[in-house]
Amino acid sequence: MKTMRTRAAVALEAGKPLTVMDVNLELPKAGEVLVEIKATGVCHTDEYTRSGADSEGVFPSILGHEGAGIVLQVGEGVTTLKPGDHVIPLYTPECRECYACTSGKTNLCTAIRGTQGKGLMPDGTSRFSMLDGTPIFHYMGCSTFANHTVMPEIALAKVREDAPFESICYIGCGVTTGIGAVINTAGVEIGSTAAVFGLGGIGLNVIQGLRMAGADIIIGVDLNENKREMAEKFGMTHFVNPKDLKAGQTVVEAIIEITKTEKDEFGGVDYSFDATGNVQVMRDALECSHRGWGVSVIIGVAPAGAEISTRPFQLVTGRVWKGTAFGGAKGRTDVPKFVDWYMDKKIEIDSMITHTMPLDDINDAFDLMHKGESIRAVVTF
Amino acid sequence: MKTMRTRAAVALEAGKPLTVMDVNLELPKAGEVLVEIKATGVCHTDEYTRSGADSEGVFPSILGHEGAGIVLQVGEGVTTLKPGDHVIPLYTPECRECYACTSGKTNLCTAIRGTQGKGLMPDGTSRFSMLDGTPIFHYMGCSTFANHTVMPEIALAKVREDAPFESICYIGCGVTTGIGAVINTAGVEIGSTAAVFGLGGIGLNVIQGLRMAGADIIIGVDLNENKREMAEKFGMTHFVNPKDLKAGQTVVEAIIEITKTEKDEFGGVDYSFDATGNVQVMRDALECSHRGWGVSVIIGVAPAGAEISTRPFQLVTGRVWKGTAFGGAKGRTDVPKFVDWYMDKKIEIDSMITHTMPLDDINDAFDLMHKGESIRAVVTF
Ligand SMILES: [Zn+2]
Ligand SMILES: [Zn+2]
Ligand SMILES: [Zn+2]
Ligand SMILES: [Zn+2]
Repeated sequence: MKTMRTRAAVALEAGKPLTVMDVNLELPKAGEVLVEIKATGVCHTDEYTRSGADSEGVFPSILGHEGAGIVLQVGEGVTTLKPGDHVIPLYTPECRECYACTSGKTNLCTAIRGTQGKGLMPDGTSRFSMLDGTPIFHYMGCSTFANHTVMPEIALAKVREDAPFESICYIGCGVTTGIGAVINTAGVEIGSTAAVFGLGGIGLNVIQGLRMAGADIIIGVDLNENKREMAEKFGMTHFVNPKDLKAGQTVVEAIIEITKTEKDEFGGVDYSFDATGNVQVMRDALECSHRGWGVSVIIGVAPAGAEISTRPFQLVTGRVWKGTAFGGAKGRTDVPKFVDWYMDKKIEIDSMITHTMPLDDINDAFDLMHKGESIRAVVTF
Repeated sequence: MKTMRTRAAVALEAGKPLTVMDVNLELPKAGEVLVEIKATGVCHTDEYTRSGADSEGVFPSILGHEGAGIVLQVGEGVTTLKPGDHVIPLYTPECRECYACTSGKTNLCTAIRGTQGKGLMPDGTSRFSMLDGTPIFHYMGCSTFANHTVMPEIALAKVREDAPFESICYIGCGVTTGIGAVINTAGVEIGSTAAVFGLGGIGLNVIQGLRMAGADIIIGVDLNENKREMAEKFGMTHFVNPKDLKAGQTVVEAIIEITKTEKDEFGGVDYSFDATGNVQVMRDALECSHRGWGVSVIIGVAPAGAEISTRPFQLVTGRVWKGTAFGGAKGRTDVPKFVDWYMDKKIEIDSMITHTMPLDDINDAFDLMHKGESIRAVVTF
């Protein structure tokens, strides 16, 4: 068994800060790839698991799922990647052979789902361990809070080599999730009206997706007035602050008021997106969508056990309730395209990367997230 | 004001049997049409209003919305119909000019929605009255429990003259709702798998829609074993009786068991349909649909105030929750096509018309419905 040593931020137990330490990393087995991580975003999903809120979280583990890096070595049978290739890790792999992939109807590849959910590689073991030999779990099949990681070939998107790692790492999660929700899941058309609930990183990416797709009205909803300016830069045309409504008016009514026209007595948006994870907000998002054809997409992750509800009348009168994971994107196919869009300046990422830091300071990234001071903090190696 | 006299079954007050009596009917105004009703089905929706359960029900009124008849006279400006034309009344009109109709995205025409919901003609008045002059409300813009009725031109589908009224009247509601849910709302493809909850008239029509659309597996779910035989005749391939499951198994699990294959570890149906109106069943229908792409369509009408709910995870992992009204059909465009399909024997109606009776016996139709002895009872004139 060949191993190397690398440096990683390890979640030793739930609720504790990460510990940066040297760990052992086994070199790639058949179908696997060793990647040198050059940059990784720190996301709410990492925090969800770190905090212990995720009932499926296992420890000790190396978190992180928004990375970018370079292939150092490939295992037996790997044919699509070679040392030197630039890659973005995919927490939603794309095997192109399973029942889901070949259906053409979903991006939710099931090839390695069982082991990935348990924090293991496809063969049911871990590549990471403490220096004393204690195994360390993988996370979302990625574990990008490490200078080196081992991943399945099917979970790596090969991208162009002139793209900066510290920007494109965000395409491994929020950028693709937000923009993909618009173009893959909702299928927004030119001239549409839309509402986006929650103007954090995902919400901003939904907004720029809507702008790309040619939406005419893009309403942002957030309790924090400070989010307005950035959202407007990304394309938001109207801002609704639920703290600041007319007396007796609901958020849904405020959105209907903005979208009503002489020709359209009903109002409501053609497309709505929840990027909050709050189930009451998900309901508002559905109900502010247009009678007859409104499509509402759930992006946010709700607390365990929380349920969405509405009167069936909302659906019978033509609204559609959907959800999206990784923006409906097929990672190996779509992520390189998103990188091209970034390089062609069709999409904006840099202004969302509000902080960068070395791995040793990774706990600062979680602090900034809690204080609401960052959109995205990125660790660079 | 020119009036004629006709015979109608009048709902004098909520919860009472209908009273068959002579009533006055004003002749059609501009844009309106006088129709001699030749046959009308008696539907659960009529019963919902008759019983008083419908909070928007108004009395006295002439119920009935599943009719077929002949145009006797047209008002000023009517251009698409002439005396002698055979027609099916539409509770969902198709004006082809309103914001909804011109959207191309919905069948929920809004041209006369406000007045129709109040039991009135588009000019805000009623054409029916008691012999003492008391106005009688219209119902769903149709009022087919009368030998003659007046309707807006935009709410009448012109159909071929060789089709028998006592069969095609059912195309004005259940047939179109069930088959339309499959082909318009769900968009079922050849080779699909599907589950239908509730094997009454709507459910049977969903099943024959699925058969037409080429579904491979058509699972019917009903508590009543007696529904099995008829459902199999219409195309059901598997029957699940929730009273008769393996120990510890849920309906959802039973459906997953039927649909799981060697290639597909998850199972679940591509399309599911609720034709029960029970919100817990609506949840089962969603949750038995396939991870990644399952589409669940609500057809049934839930009790006032009832709410559907589920974990957002169900949607985020790719299921879509929709509803349908009048099967998503554009009445003037689609209903004549359904009549053709019936005449061409592509769809079956006659075996669902289990009872016929004269108007004087219309209350028997409600009794048969309550006893579960009829699929559809039809009044003929
Ligand atoms: Zn993330
Ligand atoms: Zn796959
Ligand atoms: Zn009906
Ligand atoms: Zn219309």
